[in-house]
Amino acid sequence: MKALITTVPFGEKNKLPLELLENAGIDYTINPLNRKLKEDELVGLIPEFDLLIAGTEPITKKVIDNAENLKLISRVGIGLDSVDLIAAKNKNILVSYTPDAPAPAVAELTLGMIFSLLRHIHVANTAMHRGEWERFFGRRITEVTIGVIGAGRVGGRVLRRLARLGSPRILVNDIRPDQNIVDNKIKLEWVDKETILREADVVTLHLPLTGATKNLITYEKLKMMKSDGVIINTSRGGIINEQDLFKIMSEGHLSAAGIDVFEDEPYKGDLINIERCMLTSHMGSMSVDCRTQMEIEATEEIVRYVNNLDLRCPVPKAEYDMQSEK
Amino acid sequence: MKALITTVPFGEKNKLPLELLENAGIDYTINPLNRKLKEDELVGLIPEFDLLIAGTEPITKKVIDNAENLKLISRVGIGLDSVDLIAAKNKNILVSYTPDAPAPAVAELTLGMIFSLLRHIHVANTAMHRGEWERFFGRRITEVTIGVIGAGRVGGRVLRRLARLGSPRILVNDIRPDQNIVDNKIKLEWVDKETILREADVVTLHLPLTGATKNLITYEKLKMMKSDGVIINTSRGGIINEQDLFKIMSEGHLSAAGIDVFEDEPYKGDLINIERCMLTSHMGSMSVDCRTQMEIEATEEIVRYVNNLDLRCPVPKAEYDMQSEK
Repeated sequence: MKALITTVPFGEKNKLPLELLENAGIDYTINPLNRKLKEDELVGLIPEFDLLIAGTEPITKKVIDNAENLKLISRVGIGLDSVDLIAAKNKNILVSYTPDAPAPAVAELTLGMIFSLLRHIHVANTAMHRGEWERFFGRRITEVTIGVIGAGRVGGRVLRRLARLGSPRILVNDIRPDQNIVDNKIKLEWVDKETILREADVVTLHLPLTGATKNLITYEKLKMMKSDGVIINTSRGGIINEQDLFKIMSEGHLSAAGIDVFEDEPYKGDLINIERCMLTSHMGSMSVDCRTQMEIEATEEIVRYVNNLDLRCPVPKAEYDMQSEK
Repeated sequence: MKALITTVPFGEKNKLPLELLENAGIDYTINPLNRKLKEDELVGLIPEFDLLIAGTEPITKKVIDNAENLKLISRVGIGLDSVDLIAAKNKNILVSYTPDAPAPAVAELTLGMIFSLLRHIHVANTAMHRGEWERFFGRRITEVTIGVIGAGRVGGRVLRRLARLGSPRILVNDIRPDQNIVDNKIKLEWVDKETILREADVVTLHLPLTGATKNLITYEKLKMMKSDGVIINTSRGGIINEQDLFKIMSEGHLSAAGIDVFEDEPYKGDLINIERCMLTSHMGSMSVDCRTQMEIEATEEIVRYVNNLDLRCPVPKAEYDMQSEK
């Protein structure tokens, strides 16, 4: 069987995923363009492959219609917004994913952003490297109210870390509130999204990209935030409207933002002109330990399939239902 | 009585310190140059003042010799390397300081740097703002050994936060080891400085600047560190030799560094050319809450003096002894 690995880098820090493929006798090809593929590039590559180890590139109906031999899509990661699950199902193509592995790394990136953005570390660093010495006042975690929208695998981890660091007031919103998500004395306040936007000093998003979350954060929503508020998105591009964020920050609203995910990646849009908007290159899961775990888990699914074993992490029915509702 | 306030900004985020001075009938002047004063500038300003609310500018023997009316130096902060305590004592000038107030803010800046440096957040941000998309692999706090040199007010707080975040191995060095510095199950390993340099992935310094710590970290010491090691200094400039750090990072050694304090401030030296060296502008204590607390405490000392009350935080004998030994 032939596998296409589209997600890059792959097997770079740890060769085990490649060894697993070789030991299983799977012939593999790693993404020859060494960057996120566009739809048409994937359409051109996909026909000869039986198995796909996928990143976040668009696996649309058009791609699937051209995937003449494809039997399994194994997503390295958690988000499924890039995969047309219904089209895959209609062609009897299985889909699996690695929902737990990236969460600790994304949570730590988020925490790092909170510290940097509250103290303007990124702005001071940029100024210093330009030869300018300017001292910025910041705020400590214990001085601010933090709002977490989405309290799932990543959001829950962010909440637990904030609680341990002594955040005095934490606001949370989730479609399925879980009162026991933090295991200590910190009391979470479960509130609606608008309350978070209005009352939190730092708002961090930990949501999947769905019909309901696409463009969730528009100019009007950002305007509800405090003038020195901070917004962070390490979940999926498209949840915050990028042009709206650019417009409102250009007008001087918000003291900082931290954006790791974009509607079109690689991102080179207008936000690069806003110095106090910290930008990273979809690095949420890019810690050596989490990335290795994700690659191994996704590869093991491929090997299980080839050996006629049950998949360990097939995408659950709820994800298909969510896409059917669109 | 007339007070000179050299530390800037002062009374900016919270007017209370200025109100305290006004209510006590103290005539005050805020640093007219609005930046750290040089020795000669201070020599020129100091003669007419009775009281000094001081930053980190050099309060040398020459300054004190010219301080004809000075009765009290109230330092906004903890470090006393900038004050010639012996010269002050010989002229019966009292010196007080605010040793506890800055610690929480410095500890949080350090933690923010650890997160950024391990994940290369600062390098990605700089690249993105230049229009370049490059994804960096990083490490999580739970993947690395962290070494803390100096376990006092700031170092102790860094240790406790790291313990709460689940750091798996923490090495510590201090001239007075305190086994109970962290109040939970994490076991600290008390080792010598060289063991920390050799074995820690992240080394962070929390030391006063003294004859013993000046140039403590030289090229040879940095060379002992792992090639992908990370070093952080948020304590005092001069403890790491800046030219040595520049040289060794230019040669490719160390994956990152985070430097908030410099031998000469404002700093515009060679390290500004090393992108993976995160630089901030002596912002350790610059959180609104800590800075306000420091300014209030330093002002209250001045007011106590004017009202013939005992000082609350006179500099202890050990600090004078340390300077006598030089």
